[in-house]
Amino acid sequence: MQYKVAIFLFNEVEVLDFAGPFEVFSIAGLRTMTVAPFDVFTIAQFETIEARNHLTIKPTYTFATAPTADIILIPGGGGRHADGTPFGSRREMNNPIVLNWVKEQAAQAKLVLSVCTGSLILGKADLLEGLKATTHFKAIDALKEISTNIHVKENVRFVDNGTIITSAGISAGIDMSLYTVGKLFGKETADETAAYMQYDYWTS
Amino acid sequence: MQYKVAIFLFNEVEVLDFAGPFEVFSIAGLRTMTVAPFDVFTIAQFETIEARNHLTIKPTYTFATAPTADIILIPGGGGRHADGTPFGSRREMNNPIVLNWVKEQAAQAKLVLSVCTGSLILGKADLLEGLKATTHFKAIDALKEISTNIHVKENVRFVDNGTIITSAGISAGIDMSLYTVGKLFGKETADETAAYMQYDYWTS
Repeated sequence: MQYKVAIFLFNEVEVLDFAGPFEVFSIAGLRTMTVAPFDVFTIAQFETIEARNHLTIKPTYTFATAPTADIILIPGGGGRHADGTPFGSRREMNNPIVLNWVKEQAAQAKLVLSVCTGSLILGKADLLEGLKATTHFKAIDALKEISTNIHVKENVRFVDNGTIITSAGISAGIDMSLYTVGKLFGKETADETAAYMQYDYWTS
Repeated sequence: MQYKVAIFLFNEVEVLDFAGPFEVFSIAGLRTMTVAPFDVFTIAQFETIEARNHLTIKPTYTFATAPTADIILIPGGGGRHADGTPFGSRREMNNPIVLNWVKEQAAQAKLVLSVCTGSLILGKADLLEGLKATTHFKAIDALKEISTNIHVKENVRFVDNGTIITSAGISAGIDMSLYTVGKLFGKETADETAAYMQYDYWTS
């Protein structure tokens, strides 16, 4: 089984939010399995994305061209400009085109993952109702404000509800991705992936 | 003082090798300092780069258009195809255009950093002679083969020679970048950057 992993990109996405999971899923199992366990690609609303601090990326697919994925990953990043205008995930969480896409993908995906304030987008897409979830430590209140039916957890690196797994801020997406590798392909594969990345801090 | 940080990109660059440091330098000090301490940009030989696993990036500058940088960072990644053809850093370490650019930049930069097999490029540019250096754990022998005058260190996350700092594989670039933030702007700034990234493993 090879899982198609779709990483959502948007303007002002936090770089490590998507790049940490991109790295983990890209290299997992390559040295120990005969078939790569993951086929990783990026999807965005637009043909060019400017990530945080002007890293310009051409996504693999747009919403219009993307194949169906087994795993979707929603990174975070962004905030509000001095005049109050939201950018990054704070804008996308109110973008109906994005919310529709996320809902459609989540309805058929085997796993839905978020990193950092990506959970705000999942929350606004009504995907976290009745579930435990976490987010960047500075966005805990924002996640609580979306719905009183989201059981918001603090001081955890990630929370697994079975199909929906949310992680804390930025670097916690690496841990959540390694955890997901382990959940699907076993502890040895997760441990070997972390070792290859020299992510010495990982303990599965 | 704002430091210009030039991150070198090349085809098949390992994503987290450059994205970890990109993240650290991009967000360091933004919440505690009145002027951003780092201006981060990417530079490549070509106008479009395909990083590992088909992440397509448009670098901020090419060699022809890039400004002078205070800090240059050389990531790694790559290896050899089944037929022996080198790709990624194993190709760039023998690319005279890249080696000339690295030498020219290093001659005027305040700091020269490498992640993972980026140290092979520094070694081939004769920048590690007489110095301590490290690399990805699977490339230790390759680094030793470049010169007997490189004092290769194993089982360390990074090695600081004052101006030239090399790190171990992939995720160790995050630690090396946080260390560099601390070296230039103090422990409090490094610690706050790690905390914002929720990189709980960091201890400066």
